[in-house]
Amino acid sequence: MNNLTHSGAQKSSAQTITGRAILLEIGAKLGIVDSFLTNKEISIADVAKSTGIQASWISAYYAALAHAGLAVPGPKVSNEITHYVAPPDLQQSINDVGYVLWGLGSCAPLIANAHHFVKNLPSAAETYVRDGEHVARTSRWMGEQDFYPQAEAAITASRPKKIVDLGSGTCGLLLRCLRKLPEAQGVGIDLSHSACVKARSIVQAAGMENRVSVIEAPIQSLIDNPAPLEGAEIIHGGFVFHDLMPDEEATLNALLKTFRRTAPNGALLVVDAVPYGPNPDEHAFSAAFTFLHSHFMGRRLQPESEWKERLSAAGYTRVDVAPLGISGGRIFTARA
Amino acid sequence: MNNLTHSGAQKSSAQTITGRAILLEIGAKLGIVDSFLTNKEISIADVAKSTGIQASWISAYYAALAHAGLAVPGPKVSNEITHYVAPPDLQQSINDVGYVLWGLGSCAPLIANAHHFVKNLPSAAETYVRDGEHVARTSRWMGEQDFYPQAEAAITASRPKKIVDLGSGTCGLLLRCLRKLPEAQGVGIDLSHSACVKARSIVQAAGMENRVSVIEAPIQSLIDNPAPLEGAEIIHGGFVFHDLMPDEEATLNALLKTFRRTAPNGALLVVDAVPYGPNPDEHAFSAAFTFLHSHFMGRRLQPESEWKERLSAAGYTRVDVAPLGISGGRIFTARA
Repeated sequence: MNNLTHSGAQKSSAQTITGRAILLEIGAKLGIVDSFLTNKEISIADVAKSTGIQASWISAYYAALAHAGLAVPGPKVSNEITHYVAPPDLQQSINDVGYVLWGLGSCAPLIANAHHFVKNLPSAAETYVRDGEHVARTSRWMGEQDFYPQAEAAITASRPKKIVDLGSGTCGLLLRCLRKLPEAQGVGIDLSHSACVKARSIVQAAGMENRVSVIEAPIQSLIDNPAPLEGAEIIHGGFVFHDLMPDEEATLNALLKTFRRTAPNGALLVVDAVPYGPNPDEHAFSAAFTFLHSHFMGRRLQPESEWKERLSAAGYTRVDVAPLGISGGRIFTARA
Repeated sequence: MNNLTHSGAQKSSAQTITGRAILLEIGAKLGIVDSFLTNKEISIADVAKSTGIQASWISAYYAALAHAGLAVPGPKVSNEITHYVAPPDLQQSINDVGYVLWGLGSCAPLIANAHHFVKNLPSAAETYVRDGEHVARTSRWMGEQDFYPQAEAAITASRPKKIVDLGSGTCGLLLRCLRKLPEAQGVGIDLSHSACVKARSIVQAAGMENRVSVIEAPIQSLIDNPAPLEGAEIIHGGFVFHDLMPDEEATLNALLKTFRRTAPNGALLVVDAVPYGPNPDEHAFSAAFTFLHSHFMGRRLQPESEWKERLSAAGYTRVDVAPLGISGGRIFTARA
């Protein structure tokens, strides 16, 4: 039968990613892996205490994580493993798993009700709403390596004194940038009340309340109230502008003009996805991402050429484009 | 920024698999991809007609499949693509996607309710039941290359005159074997009423009703009624025996002895998973598979050594083991 075992040649990727996704999703649901992912080390006893889950269950879970290459057991104490630390490639694993969990987890309510979306997209989109916290978590995981580092590097490269982040969530990206730029101020704008509450508490815990303002508002409000943009040397919008297309195209154009007019010396960084990414290694995910947006979310992604024209029409004369790790992802750097 | 794009190096696997999984799951939910996966070609008009879904929707879906490397467009007719054929690696893609959809789709009700499983496994297992048809489909997809071909080769290698398949589902494996063995008879046993009804209709459509008997019964019933096993030259059980462990261990032992006694000249093929597969490339998926079985399904997988002892105790003196494509999967060939 040895000639039959050859089919395993390609198995490591799909199976490995799936196995890791299953385990990390279980851990995230139970809150028994969060501190490990943040701090890169945990004690079984501490996790059991903080969650109220039996230590034997936590132990079995971490033993499974270790077998899956997601944790490294510490030395045995009285024949038991009491601590685990992160392996060097944990970030990459989380990043990979983020895609699977976004696609098959966060988007599950859309896919499960595909029949309704085929019949009536607006009605289905109102009925089957994704879990915002799940989307936020899986997006954060995908971004670990595939868009946050690139955005952070682009934001900090010119050492701006003032950064405005549109759709700032819990201000994770903004805080990382400000730590690298001790003299900079930041403004985070997000329409989610719960995200802003959480952001303010994180900002305070970081002792950054004198440097960061959190504004709870839709980004559209900046057209009438552009004051937060004044003096901005970097305006960053990560995966927020595509939510204005196609229904609010005029609003998007007005917003871009507002950025250009209110912060004339600033650069605008647009991080977003183009449809059906043309590079072979981005084909499959970008196809699914584009199709979900068009046929399940009522969104139209814009190709590079359209973004360049739109930014040019808003008064930005220089626009550079670079790819991101996420398939179809692009970072547009627009300057006056 | 060119130095920042390097993080895409490993992206193709996780992103590609996720993209393909999203699209194939949408197609399966809508019934617009089934005939394509079976026949390896489709016409947009035919799919639209048979499903009642707008041809423009089907067209957009197949264009996305094509971009994702899952379909190849035929020539344009009046500037439109009307037909698609399968790419050479479609089987491999389906096989890969099967894992993701089994883990994050079929098992979603377990993972989503992890808190309940932690508190009370038996109660949770009764409350949150997986969709049997979804499990059957994703298992079939995983098996496309990773266990059915190996099982088929092992079953047909000795050119048996009578094959008994335990947990035969819709008799797909049995029919494939019988087509290669024109003089053989087959018996399929499954406890699912709907699977047996479907199996009988498939057997009839294949004109094989004189060669295949479908018995709707739990495999445990063979201990008291071993008649279907008489004269069997191959008895095959694929991923069925682990459902007897640990609660029905005595039943499993009695079953094995029944096989040995009733079909003394036959070989028993046990296709099943061992816990925490020791080979590095099976670590991650096997860890998740094992943990789900132990902590969410109340099942205990048996290591190779335990299987060998158990088969030996039942009277099988020669037991060979070979790996399968699925992580932790093994095929035990037991002979008198």
